Amino acid sequence: MPYVNIRITKEGATAEQKAELIKGATDLLVRVLNKNPATTVVVIDEVDTDNWGIGGETVTVLRRR
Amino acid sequence: MPYVNIRITKEGATAEQKAELIKGATDLLVRVLNKNPATTVVVIDEVDTDNWGIGGETVTVLRRR
Amino acid sequence: MPYVNIRITKEGATAEQKAELIKGATDLLVRVLNKNPATTVVVIDEVDTDNWGIGGETVTVLRRR
Amino acid sequence: MPYVNIRITKEGATAEQKAELIKGATDLLVRVLNKNPATTVVVIDEVDTDNWGIGGETVTVLRRR
Amino acid sequence: MPYVNIRITKEGATAEQKAELIKGATDLLVRVLNKNPATTVVVIDEVDTDNWGIGGETVTVLRRR
Amino acid sequence: MPYVNIRITKEGATAEQKAELIKGATDLLVRVLNKNPATTVVVIDEVDTDNWGIGGETVTVLRRR
Repeated sequence: MPYVNIRITKEGATAEQKAELIKGATDLLVRVLNKNPATTVVVIDEVDTDNWGIGGETVTVLRRR
Repeated sequence: MPYVNIRITKEGATAEQKAELIKGATDLLVRVLNKNPATTVVVIDEVDTDNWGIGGETVTVLRRR
Repeated sequence: MPYVNIRITKEGATAEQKAELIKGATDLLVRVLNKNPATTVVVIDEVDTDNWGIGGETVTVLRRR
Repeated sequence: MPYVNIRITKEGATAEQKAELIKGATDLLVRVLNKNPATTVVVIDEVDTDNWGIGGETVTVLRRR
Repeated sequence: MPYVNIRITKEGATAEQKAELIKGATDLLVRVLNKNPATTVVVIDEVDTDNWGIGGETVTVLRRR
Repeated sequence: MPYVNIRITKEGATAEQKAELIKGATDLLVRVLNKNPATTVVVIDEVDTDNWGIGGETVTVLRRR
């Protein structure tokens, strides 16, 4: 029944990589807490680098350095 | 003052259906908890099927079966 | 498969009212988008009035007026 | 280490304005709680006006009035 | 820089199990997307069983069966 | 109409500091995007240090060093 939300910058993650994240996060909940995988939901949000900030700056600016 | 976030897979919900979700969620908060509809916010996120997983698999893969 | 997050101030909602919100939100997704209720997740967060602001003020302060 | 999520309707915020929100939110956490800006994350979500409701109506409908 | 939010019902996860979830989610992002662990944030929310619903019912009710 | 969610570790923020965060975040949205403060919602989540991880470790462990 867990809900996992993974938020990353939109920088080219492939469908295969996203499927791996979903599989890996589900397995983690099963392994550590014995959760039921059938009702474990994982949602990935890919966020534009203009909309993600760290250290007070956007990732767009950080990537230019 | 409540905030409701509805997350669904992006599979063709129409503007009319989304308006119905917003109306329905707002009415629910008014009816059950007597909340003020004027400050009740409802936000719908539509998520790509590659980015939504259940049972360790993406919805893209599940829909193919 | 939808995920609904309802955030309200912690001001005495009963277990019965919360069960009604969960039932109502699930029914809404079934009715409007024909979603499967078995995998529809609803999570309610109750937030201290010191931690909820609207109009630049906390609900704690607003309730005192 | 804080995480700030700013959700607004998608109505033309520029990259400069979004950078200002990120800078401003980070500075706020540093000023009020002495948080480390280097690990302060700010994520902005821009939401279609069809997907944002207040008072039981979508912002798309409200903007038409 | 990723942000991961794991939401589970509050049913006795230990500090050790939560540390394992944090380690596991961080490792997953490093392995699949080569993300920097130093700025990968994982936040676990433990939610009362009265506040978590699936299939239109609270987990409190489901656990009684 | 914006919604801002500020997530911090639960380490003793006072009601006054939380009111300042709410005021500051609201003012930021008004100043940068000319948003209406009356419908700007700010919600602060305070998270146990056992439940917050960075660099693969919980803040509880990091604070001990």
